[in-house]
Amino acid sequence: MSSRLEGNLVLCQSGGPTAVINASLAGVIEEALQHEEITGVYGAMNGMLGILGRSIIDLKKEEPSVIAGLRGTPSAALGSSRYKLREEDLERILSIFRAFGIRYFLVNGGNDSMDTGNRVWEFAIAQGYELRVMGIPKTIDNDLACTDHCPGYGSVARWLAIATMDSGRDTEGIYTADPIKIIECMGRDAGWVAASTSLAKQTEEDAPHLIYFPEICLRKEKFLKDVQEAYDTRGYVVIVVPECLRGEHGQVLVESKRLLDTDGFGHRQPGGVGQFLADLIAENLKIKARCDKPGTIQRSSILCLSPVDLEEAYRVGQMAVRYSVEGKSGFMVTIERINSPDYRVEMGMIELEKVANRIRTLPPEFIHENQNFVTSEFTKYCAPLVGGSLPKYVRLKKHYVA
Amino acid sequence: MSSRLEGNLVLCQSGGPTAVINASLAGVIEEALQHEEITGVYGAMNGMLGILGRSIIDLKKEEPSVIAGLRGTPSAALGSSRYKLREEDLERILSIFRAFGIRYFLVNGGNDSMDTGNRVWEFAIAQGYELRVMGIPKTIDNDLACTDHCPGYGSVARWLAIATMDSGRDTEGIYTADPIKIIECMGRDAGWVAASTSLAKQTEEDAPHLIYFPEICLRKEKFLKDVQEAYDTRGYVVIVVPECLRGEHGQVLVESKRLLDTDGFGHRQPGGVGQFLADLIAENLKIKARCDKPGTIQRSSILCLSPVDLEEAYRVGQMAVRYSVEGKSGFMVTIERINSPDYRVEMGMIELEKVANRIRTLPPEFIHENQNFVTSEFTKYCAPLVGGSLPKYVRLKKHYVA
Repeated sequence: MSSRLEGNLVLCQSGGPTAVINASLAGVIEEALQHEEITGVYGAMNGMLGILGRSIIDLKKEEPSVIAGLRGTPSAALGSSRYKLREEDLERILSIFRAFGIRYFLVNGGNDSMDTGNRVWEFAIAQGYELRVMGIPKTIDNDLACTDHCPGYGSVARWLAIATMDSGRDTEGIYTADPIKIIECMGRDAGWVAASTSLAKQTEEDAPHLIYFPEICLRKEKFLKDVQEAYDTRGYVVIVVPECLRGEHGQVLVESKRLLDTDGFGHRQPGGVGQFLADLIAENLKIKARCDKPGTIQRSSILCLSPVDLEEAYRVGQMAVRYSVEGKSGFMVTIERINSPDYRVEMGMIELEKVANRIRTLPPEFIHENQNFVTSEFTKYCAPLVGGSLPKYVRLKKHYVA
Repeated sequence: MSSRLEGNLVLCQSGGPTAVINASLAGVIEEALQHEEITGVYGAMNGMLGILGRSIIDLKKEEPSVIAGLRGTPSAALGSSRYKLREEDLERILSIFRAFGIRYFLVNGGNDSMDTGNRVWEFAIAQGYELRVMGIPKTIDNDLACTDHCPGYGSVARWLAIATMDSGRDTEGIYTADPIKIIECMGRDAGWVAASTSLAKQTEEDAPHLIYFPEICLRKEKFLKDVQEAYDTRGYVVIVVPECLRGEHGQVLVESKRLLDTDGFGHRQPGGVGQFLADLIAENLKIKARCDKPGTIQRSSILCLSPVDLEEAYRVGQMAVRYSVEGKSGFMVTIERINSPDYRVEMGMIELEKVANRIRTLPPEFIHENQNFVTSEFTKYCAPLVGGSLPKYVRLKKHYVA
């Protein structure tokens, strides 16, 4: 498989958008242009839907200024999708790849997308069609196995850490009227996103005061006790919860019941748990509580781009092309952290089947024994990913007049 | 009243926090230090609650670095409140002012706070106590009468314009799975905040595609028709709604029923209308819809500070001190826009009673005749307030492969 393979390359952007997925696209395009054996550089419109619908664009025809601008443009410029591949699609895909002369197939997405890549790759082998398949990691959820972290996560972590600082100061400023705030963040199966808000906390007064995780089923009595204690300590509380927080029996606490809101993978639309818990607090503790639910804004902000995340997103795109030109196929690019005093990484790769459909949850050593905050080990892990220091806010010393 | 008046100054921060209310505090402190007749510069902790509770701090004892840092620190550093003054409070306030030697009383807030300032001022006159009272405008709602705009608005407008760009690109990127998004923004009685999201829209594809206003009661059939038409046009829709959107009979569509959630002024906690309308769309149009509700994050972001807003917030604080030292009392500082090709303002003042408890809604000429967007007159009004250009994003030209 290390022989020179001439043909066209096609990239799919897949799953939820991020602030840096277009940086990976830029990395793919700029690297692909360096290799003569890659004759055409194509993008599928709206992920696998674009392959199946033959809706494929020629990226070589884009202006260089547009390609350069991708690094500063959030969300998925090619369009993305949440399409679950059916068995009967595989043959169709291969016939389209033949028709379009495609020999390089890159999928930029999460664990569902790595499964897609793996199945297409296995089918191509079975059919004797030489195809280089490479996965490019992308998910704000940071839950892909076998990689230190995922592009997209550093930027959502930076956004949420700053938003939690701001929202926390807001509550601290008006706690006499609004003493309790819940911030509902993303994170389907793992608590990485929720945990990242802990970076906002530098002092005892700083938010967040409590963080909950999808890994730990929430017990109502414990939750209310945590909140009351935190409230008694300082008169206000800022609480972070992931949208897919689970209740005592492991069920997602709040999610849509509509069939319409279920995606191709059977995932239901979550959301609303923040308001649900605010109501629970108001009704049980008789303390006013409100909720911020930034939703998709958190994952698509250019202003809070982590420069580390941006650079790595570009590199994983670049490396996917390099590895496939070298003859590799059936792998996902990984980011491996080097054990050193400074933050340093190198790119590696892992078989797609080892990543496909697997979820890496927050390991126990990152969750505080009280089950309502992170440990300092988590902070050490996460801090370099947000790429630089957070804003510095002041507090008055408050010398009271006698 | 133009005679020299020696005594202490006290400032109250009042109502909902903003990104720049502390800049007004910095303006007050730094200006007050220039005037020998202002012997002490005090801050009330948590607004009027701090006056009534004699919880007053000496701002001269704060480090200069902390005072300087206030410009870059969101929310209310002194703490704020939503306390409605009772008749019997007035006597108590005056006796506390006497005890603390207070001759300068500054209130930084919205129309409720201007009423507070006005009542304290009138009571002081009636009691023959010489007191200089000055209101400093502050409200992200931008609904104070007799001023071109209010400090806090430019920054929330900048934040929301950028967030709408980001959230809009997000929907455009994943419209195949999530075609409709509602952004629920703030704005209690007026549509200024919702309207500001229109700055995100530069091209036909850009979000927002529909904006609704508290000034216009929402008719369900028209709303659903608007959404369906917008969806049919481009396959996705981003809709902005204010938290206090009203229904056909003028009622706030979604607000808390809990007594706990009603503030001193009888305002109930709104919130949830975005999800309510997402459900309405899903159920009636059978199109998937989701909601972003950034909540308090929108009003307290340092990253989206409008430099124009920051500077003006500082100046209104500064001018409140200057005017009161000159002998003025019973006024609120106003911002007056000068008719010129460039954006220029000068500071003025208006009697507190003309501002107290009044609400300036969005004038009809700023609302498009379709009642679901703004006019270009609004854009001309709002654009300079956000202080500089918004991020530039690219779009692929999309040359399809035959």
